[in-house]
Amino acid sequence: MSEHHNQQPDANLLSLNTATVRQQWTLDKIIDGCARHDIRGISPWRDQTHALGVKEAARRIRAHQLTVTGYCRGGMFPGATAQQRRHNDDDNRRAVDEALELNAQCLVLVVGGLPEGSKDLRQARGQVRDGLATMLEYSRSVSMPLAIEPLHPMYAADRACVNTLEQANDLCDELGDDGLGIAVDLYHTWWDAKFAQQVERAGKSRLLAFHICDWLASTQDLLLDRGMMGDGVIDIRGARRTVEEQGYRGFHEVEIFSAKNWWLRDPDEVLETCKQRHLACC
Amino acid sequence: MSEHHNQQPDANLLSLNTATVRQQWTLDKIIDGCARHDIRGISPWRDQTHALGVKEAARRIRAHQLTVTGYCRGGMFPGATAQQRRHNDDDNRRAVDEALELNAQCLVLVVGGLPEGSKDLRQARGQVRDGLATMLEYSRSVSMPLAIEPLHPMYAADRACVNTLEQANDLCDELGDDGLGIAVDLYHTWWDAKFAQQVERAGKSRLLAFHICDWLASTQDLLLDRGMMGDGVIDIRGARRTVEEQGYRGFHEVEIFSAKNWWLRDPDEVLETCKQRHLACC
Repeated sequence: MSEHHNQQPDANLLSLNTATVRQQWTLDKIIDGCARHDIRGISPWRDQTHALGVKEAARRIRAHQLTVTGYCRGGMFPGATAQQRRHNDDDNRRAVDEALELNAQCLVLVVGGLPEGSKDLRQARGQVRDGLATMLEYSRSVSMPLAIEPLHPMYAADRACVNTLEQANDLCDELGDDGLGIAVDLYHTWWDAKFAQQVERAGKSRLLAFHICDWLASTQDLLLDRGMMGDGVIDIRGARRTVEEQGYRGFHEVEIFSAKNWWLRDPDEVLETCKQRHLACC
Repeated sequence: MSEHHNQQPDANLLSLNTATVRQQWTLDKIIDGCARHDIRGISPWRDQTHALGVKEAARRIRAHQLTVTGYCRGGMFPGATAQQRRHNDDDNRRAVDEALELNAQCLVLVVGGLPEGSKDLRQARGQVRDGLATMLEYSRSVSMPLAIEPLHPMYAADRACVNTLEQANDLCDELGDDGLGIAVDLYHTWWDAKFAQQVERAGKSRLLAFHICDWLASTQDLLLDRGMMGDGVIDIRGARRTVEEQGYRGFHEVEIFSAKNWWLRDPDEVLETCKQRHLACC
């Protein structure tokens, strides 16, 4: 373990996933807030860019010279009918176009869970593979990298049936590395005994994004009770060391859904806290 | 796939984990309830046997000729200090003695999560391995099988840092198969893309218990919102086929924590529903 890796992170590598203050601010205010707090990266969600207008969002982000570290999100491939899956394919193509407009470093994929009424995870995972293969034909043609984000197993039914880094690596193996990689979100993957092994297997070329927050020891809600870095049990600095040992030098994107704590606070305080905790705990 | 495996399960293989009606009935009433409803297996918890007295519990279970399909529970190996871990070791030895008194088929192990104040999962997992090795010296000498129960990754911090069948298999490889195996609980493992592969790896000799309930698509609570078989998204019959293909012929143990639904109902209705759903959905 080198000396370097016990050091604080580069403050310039902090990025804000806009979900972190989405209850308090609209996207235009979030963009201004990042600039005001000297947070140099941003990762907006589609509902927010649609509300502001994708071109206008891109213009404002460019004006502040923020890096778009990811665009949230594409995916949601499975569907109960072929028509539904074609609809998903079309929507994913639009997501790629928007990511290009925003000059995003990657489009993040939450792959989707079981179709309505289904109990067949294997089938859903097959639909993910097929939908992703279709999407890659387009995203590769326009050079927009796709980042598969494994979601915590507690979301296997309703959000994503890709639940481990190993599954994401398997998909990259099967579909090819060109324009395809992984978003490593610690909230979803911190528990995994194979975390280090699968980050190593991914290697620098597949590590497209690194998302941080914390797992609260007494989590109260499956979706909206994520913790600020340092308030929970994740060894964030150790995980950063693990991805950096593979050569990752990208941003550290804070993404906190927190209905009863951080979403109720002054968003300027939230951003300031993100900056402090990034240096202290990441 | 043989014809056999699409058939209903043997009603005589239903077992009741006593947590399923723990809010309504004390253990003596649960034992009588199982007998009255002709449920032939039971799996009691330590707090319940302590309240009734272990010898008295054993006597009543014997009187009704119920099979004790597992005893809940040993484990909780990690500790912040050596003294705490020795305390855990002593308690586990007592749990083995109680399981013997009850003539349990196995002692189920929930291995424990992070010690207070720790963020070091690797260390906790090492303490699990060491504590289990110590426990095996005794359990093997008295021939009480220990069943490692991988818990869902959402419990990695506070209940169990063994979160996949693969980890449990790895522990069996490392510590030896004699008197050591796995409790496969579908609530904890249904999401796992390696479920079938790791059940196959376990094989008949390691498959010591099979626990069933359902994962509700809109789960409201991390601990106390398990579903009755058929009300959720788990392909329970398919999973039973998977364990039976390895030669498993043991009980199917229903374990439902449900603060806002099943724990509020008439326990006779709960047991009757377990019987019906066992035949219809498992």
